[in-house]
Amino acid sequence: MVPEEVFNEIGTNRQRYIERLSEFLQIPSVSTDSAHTADVQKAAAWVLARLKGLGFQVTLHETERHPVVYGHLHTDPDLPTLLIYGHYDVQPPDPLDEWVTPPFSPSTRDGFIYARGATDNKGQWFTYFAAMEAILAVNGKLPINVKVLVEGEEEIGSPSLEPFLKKHLGELETDAIAISDGSQFAPGMPAITYGLRGLSYLQVDVQGPRVDLHSGSFGGLVANPVQVLSQLLAQLKSADGSIAIPGFYDDVRELESRERQEMAALPVDEVELKKYLGVDELVGEPDYGPVERRSARPTLDVNGIWGGFSGEGAKTIIPARAGAKVSMRLVPDQRASTVNGLFENFIRSKAPPGVKLQITDLHGSDPVLVERDQAAMQAAVRAIKIGFGKEPIFIREGGSIPIVSLFKELLGCNNILLMGWGRPDDGAHSPNERFFLEDFHCGIRSAAALLYELKQALTGSNPPPARVAGKASS
Amino acid sequence: MVPEEVFNEIGTNRQRYIERLSEFLQIPSVSTDSAHTADVQKAAAWVLARLKGLGFQVTLHETERHPVVYGHLHTDPDLPTLLIYGHYDVQPPDPLDEWVTPPFSPSTRDGFIYARGATDNKGQWFTYFAAMEAILAVNGKLPINVKVLVEGEEEIGSPSLEPFLKKHLGELETDAIAISDGSQFAPGMPAITYGLRGLSYLQVDVQGPRVDLHSGSFGGLVANPVQVLSQLLAQLKSADGSIAIPGFYDDVRELESRERQEMAALPVDEVELKKYLGVDELVGEPDYGPVERRSARPTLDVNGIWGGFSGEGAKTIIPARAGAKVSMRLVPDQRASTVNGLFENFIRSKAPPGVKLQITDLHGSDPVLVERDQAAMQAAVRAIKIGFGKEPIFIREGGSIPIVSLFKELLGCNNILLMGWGRPDDGAHSPNERFFLEDFHCGIRSAAALLYELKQALTGSNPPPARVAGKASS
Repeated sequence: MVPEEVFNEIGTNRQRYIERLSEFLQIPSVSTDSAHTADVQKAAAWVLARLKGLGFQVTLHETERHPVVYGHLHTDPDLPTLLIYGHYDVQPPDPLDEWVTPPFSPSTRDGFIYARGATDNKGQWFTYFAAMEAILAVNGKLPINVKVLVEGEEEIGSPSLEPFLKKHLGELETDAIAISDGSQFAPGMPAITYGLRGLSYLQVDVQGPRVDLHSGSFGGLVANPVQVLSQLLAQLKSADGSIAIPGFYDDVRELESRERQEMAALPVDEVELKKYLGVDELVGEPDYGPVERRSARPTLDVNGIWGGFSGEGAKTIIPARAGAKVSMRLVPDQRASTVNGLFENFIRSKAPPGVKLQITDLHGSDPVLVERDQAAMQAAVRAIKIGFGKEPIFIREGGSIPIVSLFKELLGCNNILLMGWGRPDDGAHSPNERFFLEDFHCGIRSAAALLYELKQALTGSNPPPARVAGKASS
Repeated sequence: MVPEEVFNEIGTNRQRYIERLSEFLQIPSVSTDSAHTADVQKAAAWVLARLKGLGFQVTLHETERHPVVYGHLHTDPDLPTLLIYGHYDVQPPDPLDEWVTPPFSPSTRDGFIYARGATDNKGQWFTYFAAMEAILAVNGKLPINVKVLVEGEEEIGSPSLEPFLKKHLGELETDAIAISDGSQFAPGMPAITYGLRGLSYLQVDVQGPRVDLHSGSFGGLVANPVQVLSQLLAQLKSADGSIAIPGFYDDVRELESRERQEMAALPVDEVELKKYLGVDELVGEPDYGPVERRSARPTLDVNGIWGGFSGEGAKTIIPARAGAKVSMRLVPDQRASTVNGLFENFIRSKAPPGVKLQITDLHGSDPVLVERDQAAMQAAVRAIKIGFGKEPIFIREGGSIPIVSLFKELLGCNNILLMGWGRPDDGAHSPNERFFLEDFHCGIRSAAALLYELKQALTGSNPPPARVAGKASS
């Protein structure tokens, strides 16, 4: 049971939390852009200082790229331990001209806070910080042991985290892991995510002539790299919307009928969804519903394309080169490494003469399914019910959190609690990213409740069920 | 006969001409880019001042966009008149990082002058100026009447020229028109171009979702505009390299067997050509040779494409929109307006649901064939033989000079003399554009000779054969 004083403390400090979060959101910690390296470091230092302020023993672990902030606050060795994960890096803010207010000047309006990182992940991570601050202010100590790991490379595929985890396996041992980096199913419908899609992200570069050529003088003589690239990308999908790469679906596990029923029962207002997305029609595999297509079926998207002249007016050239970023969302039991290989083989087999291809694997992660029937998961259900006043539903999510499969495999922890406080239309990765302030508040309440509920669920004569050191069996 | 003193004068001033041209080349008169409007005006003023210096009566004609410089120097109403056309605007210089020396800091090395506009068209136009300056220095007057028209919109399709010509039809009446805006067939193989391809240039914009979307959250639900665009572009060509737009070839006039023989006889070193272009293979319609494909057959090229994320690293989005510039080179008897319509119908018929299309006609010009057997053309043959020391061959060129069909139709002048002084590998429209200084010199000699040869060819008891006022019959 959470002491009422903790909730009072949280209620009293609502405005202060927003100001504190705004401070964090002002740091343009864009991890993919090397021009922002100093900002990324600033964000890490900010997190470190906050945890230190709560009494955490903290360390800034340098990596090849962006540092990992790690801290722990031990209450009692006989109590269970929770590892809270978050990331302080953000997606690039472009296209900049579509932001109503600048991405790194947080602005509150209509009950939302707008900024890059508001929901993904600074705002959601901050709820745990605020919850612990409130508990410590009221009680002087946390109900369980807490470890906090905040990385700066989530948006670029967490390349440094695997080596970090491998190096610190013993130190990171935990009974449960809390991650709030997703969203509720719909506004007011909190959810626990038990499935995540994986990701294969590649870049295809096509080199044609040595330099841009005059299309009048040389049109009809050379292969045009933009056309070649278009032809290659066009062949990745069949007319029915399925992915045409041979073998792509071989490892896709069919959905259980329980899951298909649950997903079919979820309320999806297609009219509203189309309006929100700004499209006349939803598309996708005809045999699957929208919830299945966006969360439990594999997909392929071109994330960007470039080549030749894109300025004002007309320039009559045959471009020297073209390129595209292509990513595939994977589902169990697909593996990113296998899919990358299938993709590359397919593209190479379709490449016409007269161009050179380069295919670069930019990052990948495997899909994850977490066991739903565990004590820690039930504690999370109760915590959300307390925090949001509503019982959460179980869902699968379309995005990827590469760290989840790493945690599962390396730390051997199956109690991975994926509880998104945000909303599907918060605009993570889009212009005008935002976080509803009421969700922020309920998230803080839920985070506080989680520490108490986990104490109750995992403390007892039996060793905590999922506390297995080292590598898990699968 | 050209007085020997004129050639001596030209020889004496070689270095001075290069310096004068360098001055012109330093002006970044990029007509397509509104940021360069002032530079374009500066280039116009530069041309105006030069002509005025020779004693021309000059006028700067303002247009909707960039001014037309027009001047005339009348020698004797009984003598024939030559209209010299050129353009002082240039292509954009990007990609900038591929230039060895900056595009607007002319640099001479290995016998070439390097700069944007060196060959297209500042350097080639300047040969006429230098020739007239030399003749006037030696003789005090030109052998015939000369009109000079230099525009600033050639690289954007000469939109203001048609209204200008229509307004000044009487003033522009001429016996022959000289245009040096192409190239020799090969270094040391001067040529007269009797055919030019036309151009249809369009932009295709595809709008998908309202904003960039998280590809994890929404992948599988919406049509991806980059993929849709790729599919549309891929369908424009058949597997054999032919253009798949229905009706596209309907108006293509087959080559005469004389032409096919001439083209087959032209020396094409495919190994050297591939090396120059930096490609392993030449591609194109299998039933036509390389000279035919690049100059006398219609083609289609994507000139540029854009959409979504093209920065460093990985951004997992479904882009909101994508676009491409697509152009087609046309041959007799295709018409740009007809082809634009066929293109748009085809693209619209192939558009899948879930996206919105916009197709914009950026510019167009019709193809041209000029009669080879005329007195003025034979004068041009002799002038080039004098200037370059070699008899020119007759060729068709792959590029477009929209003004040529306008001249033919509006001024009713069939004596259009297309004499390129440059080389095919001068890099017009490419980085490191250049002009061989020996060609520059021979071009000046040829330009001088042309004035004398035209006097001889077109002066006589009979009225000049092609002097027809008003609109020509076809």
